[in-house]
Amino acid sequence: MSYIERTMKSEKIYEGKVLNLRIDTVELPDKKYSKREIVEHPGAVCVVPITSDNEIYLVKQYRKAIDKEILELPAGKIEIGEEPKECAIRELKEETGLSANNYEYVIEFYSSPGFCNEKIHLFFARDLEEGIASPDIDEHIDVEKYSLEALLHMIDIGEISDSKTIIGIQLIDRVICNKNK
Amino acid sequence: MSYIERTMKSEKIYEGKVLNLRIDTVELPDKKYSKREIVEHPGAVCVVPITSDNEIYLVKQYRKAIDKEILELPAGKIEIGEEPKECAIRELKEETGLSANNYEYVIEFYSSPGFCNEKIHLFFARDLEEGIASPDIDEHIDVEKYSLEALLHMIDIGEISDSKTIIGIQLIDRVICNKNK
Repeated sequence: MSYIERTMKSEKIYEGKVLNLRIDTVELPDKKYSKREIVEHPGAVCVVPITSDNEIYLVKQYRKAIDKEILELPAGKIEIGEEPKECAIRELKEETGLSANNYEYVIEFYSSPGFCNEKIHLFFARDLEEGIASPDIDEHIDVEKYSLEALLHMIDIGEISDSKTIIGIQLIDRVICNKNK
Repeated sequence: MSYIERTMKSEKIYEGKVLNLRIDTVELPDKKYSKREIVEHPGAVCVVPITSDNEIYLVKQYRKAIDKEILELPAGKIEIGEEPKECAIRELKEETGLSANNYEYVIEFYSSPGFCNEKIHLFFARDLEEGIASPDIDEHIDVEKYSLEALLHMIDIGEISDSKTIIGIQLIDRVICNKNK
């Protein structure tokens, strides 16, 4: 049986550049009311740029929300009217300078469905060509390249701690492992 | 070289039950200012409850933010003063009725570091005993059990779309694969 929470009231708290916040009052099965704090996000893409030698490009970037630099797969917010694949091509180029001749759509997932509707579309990018990066004016990005083996180890010891990046690395590892079986 | 963004101003927009929202004005390297919209979250735990036959318990739960039911590993928000392991024990019991005699801390990661500080602490829970679930009054939860093989397939075809759940399943798969090598 499918279950939903009926919205009795919806209050916009904030409308911003990256996200909106709203508070919904919902009716529960017992007819009581509860509040849901909901972050609205336009969605994002994440790209696993992988070479024929199974090396992967990542970006190191300061993130104000966690007040530190963190290693991530190239990624970014989907702009209005943009298709996920277009966004993947644009973000990969902007952040790393790379172009890929082969994009493969893999999966999509929610980063935090308990309070946020952000959906991330993940692509593998192969057959790469290097070029000049052009990050946004307010982005400070370093590009780094690691072997898949090194990245799996970095997940296990906590040096990779971004969820979409962990997912992308583990997915490409499973694809390569399955091929070699 | 380490890079940080200096906070010039910080404005609290909302303080809620699950999250807060603040807008920071930051100074960039070129001395220009930019705004950062930041969701503050107390952090969460995620538990992979796995049987000796490599079956995993998941919970199916309606999530207002995405307006649908979604399959997730048992998880929940860390309460004030609570240690992650305590929270894991409590949430697993509340959501599934399960107790585990063996908890293993595995990794921690950020769900969406671009705009949110939520950190998720992931545990494997083994040597399980079934019991009576006691979800929160405003939670409606179904418990389901799947083989690890089925879950990997469900990730690939999009039936599992929660990021922490994808991470937990792929991690336990790597642990089991490595053991069998």
